[in-house]
Formats: sequence, structure tokens, C-alpha cells
Amino acid sequence: MLACRSATEKTRGGAGGAASRSRRPSPRQWRPTPFHGSSPGVRMPALHDLPTPSLVLDRPRLQRNIDRMADRCAELGIWLRPHLKTPKSIDVARLLMARQARGITVSTLAEAEYFARHGLHDQFYAVPLAADKIGRIAALVRGGTTVLCVAHDADAVPAYAARAAAEGIVLPLVIDVDVDHHRSGIAAGDPAFPAMARAINAAPSLALRGIMVYAGASYDAPDTDAIAALAERIRAGGVAARDLLHREGLPCDMVSYGSSPGTFFARSLDGLSESRAGVYPFQDLFQAGLGACAVDDIALSVLTQVTGRQPALNRFFVDAGGLALSKDRSTAGHAFDAGYGLVCDEDGIPIGDLIVSAASQEIGTVTSRQGATLDMAAFPPGRRLRILPNHSCFTAAAYERYNVVDGGHEVTAVWDRVNGW
Amino acid sequence: MLACRSATEKTRGGAGGAASRSRRPSPRQWRPTPFHGSSPGVRMPALHDLPTPSLVLDRPRLQRNIDRMADRCAELGIWLRPHLKTPKSIDVARLLMARQARGITVSTLAEAEYFARHGLHDQFYAVPLAADKIGRIAALVRGGTTVLCVAHDADAVPAYAARAAAEGIVLPLVIDVDVDHHRSGIAAGDPAFPAMARAINAAPSLALRGIMVYAGASYDAPDTDAIAALAERIRAGGVAARDLLHREGLPCDMVSYGSSPGTFFARSLDGLSESRAGVYPFQDLFQAGLGACAVDDIALSVLTQVTGRQPALNRFFVDAGGLALSKDRSTAGHAFDAGYGLVCDEDGIPIGDLIVSAASQEIGTVTSRQGATLDMAAFPPGRRLRILPNHSCFTAAAYERYNVVDGGHEVTAVWDRVNGW
Repeated sequence: MLACRSATEKTRGGAGGAASRSRRPSPRQWRPTPFHGSSPGVRMPALHDLPTPSLVLDRPRLQRNIDRMADRCAELGIWLRPHLKTPKSIDVARLLMARQARGITVSTLAEAEYFARHGLHDQFYAVPLAADKIGRIAALVRGGTTVLCVAHDADAVPAYAARAAAEGIVLPLVIDVDVDHHRSGIAAGDPAFPAMARAINAAPSLALRGIMVYAGASYDAPDTDAIAALAERIRAGGVAARDLLHREGLPCDMVSYGSSPGTFFARSLDGLSESRAGVYPFQDLFQAGLGACAVDDIALSVLTQVTGRQPALNRFFVDAGGLALSKDRSTAGHAFDAGYGLVCDEDGIPIGDLIVSAASQEIGTVTSRQGATLDMAAFPPGRRLRILPNHSCFTAAAYERYNVVDGGHEVTAVWDRVNGW
Repeated sequence: MLACRSATEKTRGGAGGAASRSRRPSPRQWRPTPFHGSSPGVRMPALHDLPTPSLVLDRPRLQRNIDRMADRCAELGIWLRPHLKTPKSIDVARLLMARQARGITVSTLAEAEYFARHGLHDQFYAVPLAADKIGRIAALVRGGTTVLCVAHDADAVPAYAARAAAEGIVLPLVIDVDVDHHRSGIAAGDPAFPAMARAINAAPSLALRGIMVYAGASYDAPDTDAIAALAERIRAGGVAARDLLHREGLPCDMVSYGSSPGTFFARSLDGLSESRAGVYPFQDLFQAGLGACAVDDIALSVLTQVTGRQPALNRFFVDAGGLALSKDRSTAGHAFDAGYGLVCDEDGIPIGDLIVSAASQEIGTVTSRQGATLDMAAFPPGRRLRILPNHSCFTAAAYERYNVVDGGHEVTAVWDRVNGW
């Protein structure tokens, strides 16, 4: 079974031991933005009033997760540039910025435009750039937003330079450096790496800002020691790539590092400038399986209800299927395979070992992992349940908004999301 | 490799042999609706102008798929009530209605409301009903829409009756009958089945209309003979359940049958009244793996572009990741496991055995299934590609609209979709 911590434990130190504040970055780029909650006088619904399926966000858990990562980055002495690909919400972003995050990371231009409209102007668009997206980026730049972009392939640089010049902007770029072969990026040992850096530096319409690395292979790591070892390998790879650029006389002010577990479990991130951890505000069952959080840290859930039972088959059905939960099966390789999600009561407390073991488009099938006999009388049609997701980023993407609860059943705020591209 | 048919073959008969029109249902409930294409005089973009990722729908393939199923249902002598959970688009619905479809099937109330606004008033909401959704259904009923609903659990019936009575409507219900243990439904042999039917029939605010069955286990069938055998089992189960109700003196005018492959490969659907097949207008790699279509029947694709290459690792990257393609892995158990999608050129023709073998949120990794050495010069950054999806219903759900092409590169229409609940 996955770890649960006591519901009364509201705070904790970072994974690295006693917190030291001595290396905490100064909050010189911290831009506080006002918080908008629900309007006074408007009666907000409770969970039993919401249509199902709906997305529920537990604010105390969210805040605890945000605090934990902020403390951890302070311990490590690096800035935090949270990746908003998970929440895609200005209200969550405001909570993040209030804990000294420095700028934001985005995964789509829809996010970039949305957050710029809401006043967040220090952005890192952290996927390899397609040159024909520079027009939209230039519009943001002209509106006063900095959008750091990513170069991975040397053959794309001439098109970047030409499009940026045509738009009349200077486009800041970091180079995607691949250390663990998990995803995109160029190997620092590839002669094309310094050549690309020189080409970017030489182009009047481009500005070389640094590099990014990503501890993506942490998602395949067998335990937290392995994640820590990988984090060190990624850190060293990033520092070596930076040093190579410096030896070439090239600028490298930014060494961006990614992944939430890779930040929690790193023993040191010396030499890196910032973490763009993303999933940690919400957490999910996959992160719990990695040991990066406990099940009762998971702030996101899908509200659903029982629609029917099959006593002879020892299972029942809910109105949250593959669209409401996502088809992500990332816990499939874990000791605790949660199917399509872990079934909780309306308070968000897991019910035995019930999981959504099958999901068609709009119907989820609930069973006991161990085949325990279910008390069908406890699950009458209409009973409301909450499902914890395998992968928050994908589950949240099916919804337009979050229904925020403060640990109880009342919806105290409704926060929007930006989807699409 | 999956089957491809010649690009010049535009029509074909049903899977059951030469078409016989003698048993074709009369189109007495066929409601033609006007077709709205693009406005004359407005320059529409071409595929190379669209932002990536975007959803592309090939109209000739769509029409061919629609014709094939309409012909097949005519051969089988059953009505077609297409399940619009896949397209969720009034424009696709209009093409379906033009081929003598009788009413529509929907999976969410958002679909029901959208299609009612667009004039489709004969609806089957084919998932087990939650009683607290009856308020929205009543609003549709008062607007002149018939919304057939589904009962699965006898304990839900009193709440259905009370809510329908409170709304002042008579709610038509079919009972979800489980034959293959694939999903929801009550076994016809369960004494609760006729008891539930009697309870529905006795409630003044409810009207018993019949039953539904679903050949869901066809998705696990090893070959088309097995699908045909399962279809016969489901058909016989549906007929037996209907006969049981008739012996009890209860009404059962409707025996609805589901699944596209279960309709294509059924040897007979005698005794059933209609098929609510859904995925067939678009098809997908999962259906191709089942033998229910060829790869070049797949009408839906995701337009993407190359963002970078890793020659040493024999792979490249595109800007369509897990959100753009969905995390559905339904081809994982097939002889042709397509990863997260099959990679095609801008014309929609597969390129060797290239697949999206890994998908993070916004980045897809393209590799050869057999490890063939890729000619990296053929995939420069910015090259546009189209990805065929594993499961159309899930891939389409990430998008607000379809970019329609007529087999070429020009977008000839833009059709909207309704998402959410």
C-alpha cells in the first residue's frame, strides 16, 4: 500500500533533512499578485450539488505541497520556476508566486498568452521551439512579456533567426541538453552543441541565455536513492555543458533543471540556477508510487457518483470513465497499480483498496485490487466518491475549471484553467 | 503490418457479402438538416498554415466510412442510431443523418444539449443514468427533445421516478442488460431484472421502452470470427431478455445494440431494433488492429511538426505529445502496437513503420518499430506530419474543432466539437 501521512500533519521539512535558510535566494523577482476568491454573498455549492464528473482541488493540500517545494528549493539554493503545465490556472500560479517562485514555465503558447494576460511576464516556454510559432511569441514580447524559448536542433536555428528578425525581436534561447536519453535535447559531447551555441550567439535576432536539462529518467527509477543518483548525473551533465560554453567564451547564465522528484530527492543542485518542477502542487498516484509524496498529499480528485452495481461480479460503476480520469496508466509499472485511479469517499479518504480497474469513455468500473468482497449496500446509486488520479496533468486537462474545497465539502472558490494550444 | 486498401478504392460492400436492400428500414424518422460548409469568399488555410498540433478530418474517408456502416445496417435490417460520443460534431451528425440514421446516441448531457440546439431531437443517452441529472434532461424534454435514458440498478428506480415526477415529465427508460460481463448492466437471468422492469412500468413518471446490450468484449476478441461469435451471443442475449419482458406482459419496443466491430462482423442482428455504433465514422488504429477497417480508412489525424532530431539515438521529436494524441494505449495488446500513433506524411500516408513510441505532455518521440535507421535529412525541423490515433474518441477530445480536408492539403471547412459534461 502507498504511504499515507496523518491528516493532522500539516507541514514538514524537505526530503534533505533539517531546513537551512542560509542559502535561500533573495526574492528580488517576486511579483505578488492579488488573490481572487469567491465573491462574498454568493452562495457556493457543496460537493453534493456539483454535476458529476467534476474536478476538485483541495486547497490545504495544495498549499502544503507548494510550501514543501519552496522550502526544498530554498534548502538547495536554487530558484523555483514552477511548470504551470499541470495547474494551467492563474489562481494556482498566484499561490506559487507568493512562495518566492521566480518566473513561470509553460508548455504551450495558450498558457503563455493566458498567464501574460494575467500579469505573469517572466516566462520560460520549455519545449523545443517550432519556428512558425515565433509570430505569437513576438506578440507577447511586444506586450512586455519575456518568453525564453528552447533550441534542440542546430538546423532549426537559421529559421529561428530569420523569423525573429522578421518580427523585429531578439529571441532569448536556451539549449535543450540531453543527459539521460529520456527525451529531446542535444548531447553536450556532440560537436553540434557548441556549434549551435555559437550560431545562436552570433545571430543578432537571437540571444543565448543558457541550457536546460531534465531528469526525466527519474520516472523509471526503482527507488528514491536511484532518483538521487540520477539527479546528480543530470546536475553534473548540466554543469559540464555550462562549463563547455563558458570555455568557448559563450554566455550561459541559466541552467534550468526539471522534474519534481528530481528536485525533492537531489542531494545537491549546485551549479544549476533554477528548478522548473511542475506536478508537485497537485501530486498524484504516480508521484506517490515514486515516493515523492504520500497519498494524502494528492490535492486533485475527480468527483463522481455510483450509477449501478453488479453484486455477482463484485463491482460497481461510476460516471467517471476514461475521459474524466484520462487514459494515463503510469502506475501500471508500480508496486501499487491503481488502474485508472484510487477510489475515495467524499472526504477524499481512500476506501479500502478500491480502484477504477477499467474505464470506457464515460463509465468507470470499480473493484477491489485484492478481490475483497464489496458491501454493495455501502455503494448505493447516487453515492458520491472522489477518485485520485494517476497523473494530475492529464486528468486536469479534461476540465475547464477547479472546484476548490478547504478540506471540507463546501466549494469555496472556482478557478479556471487554460487548455488547448 | 496493418492492412491498407488502395487509395483509388472509394466504396465497398459490407462485411457480410453482397448488399441486399430488401430489408432496409424505411426512413420515416429521417430528419434532413442543412449542411453548412465554409463561407464562399473566405480564404481557408492549408495544412501548412495551421498551428500545430491541430486535428485534421479527411472528408472522403469519413463519407466512405459512413456509407459503409449505413449499407451494413441496411443489409442487417436494423436501424442505425450512431453514437456521437466520437465526433461530438453537428456537421458530422448531418452527414450521418443523411444516410438514414434514425436518431442519435449521446454519452454526455453536454452532447445532448448541443445536438438539441442544432435540431436533433431523437436522442438516446446511453450511459447509466444518475438521478440528479434528470433536471437537465427535463429541460431538454420541455424543449421538445426525446431523451431515452438507461437504468442499470433497481435501487436507482425510485429516485428516477421521484425526480421525473417532480419535473413533471415522463422519462423513457431502457434497461442496460449485461451479456458479456464487459461493463455495466444487469443479467437478464437475475430476478432483479424483471422486477426492475415492472417497477419502471408501474411508475407513472417513467416509461419502459426496452433494453440495451453492448458487445464490448469484441474489443478483446482475437479475430473477426470471434467478434462474429460474440455478436451472436449478445444478439441472442438481447432477444432472450426482450422475450422475458414480453412474457411478463411488459413493453420492450427497443433492443439497442452497440459496438462498431460488433455491427460490421455480426452474421445476423435479427430481433434487435438498432445499432448505436460510434467510432466507425473516424475509425482508428485499434479498429484497424481488430480488422474492422484498413489503415487508410482512418479519417482522423493530428497535424504536427518535427521540432528536433537525435541521430545518434535514431529518433526525432514532434510537437504532439500525450495531450495532443491522448494516453490511450489500446493497440498495446495488438500484433501491430502503434505506441501513441502511426506517423504519416502530410498526405496522410504512413511513413515506413514510424510510430510515436513515447509521449510526454507536449513532446512525442518518433522511432521505427523495427529499429530501421532513419534518414534524418528527411525529417528537418519544421517538417509537417500527421499522426493516426490509437483511439479516435480520446484523441479528438483534446480539441475544440476539426480542420476538414477533402483528401488534399486545403482546409475546406472547420467544424466545431462539444467537449466536457
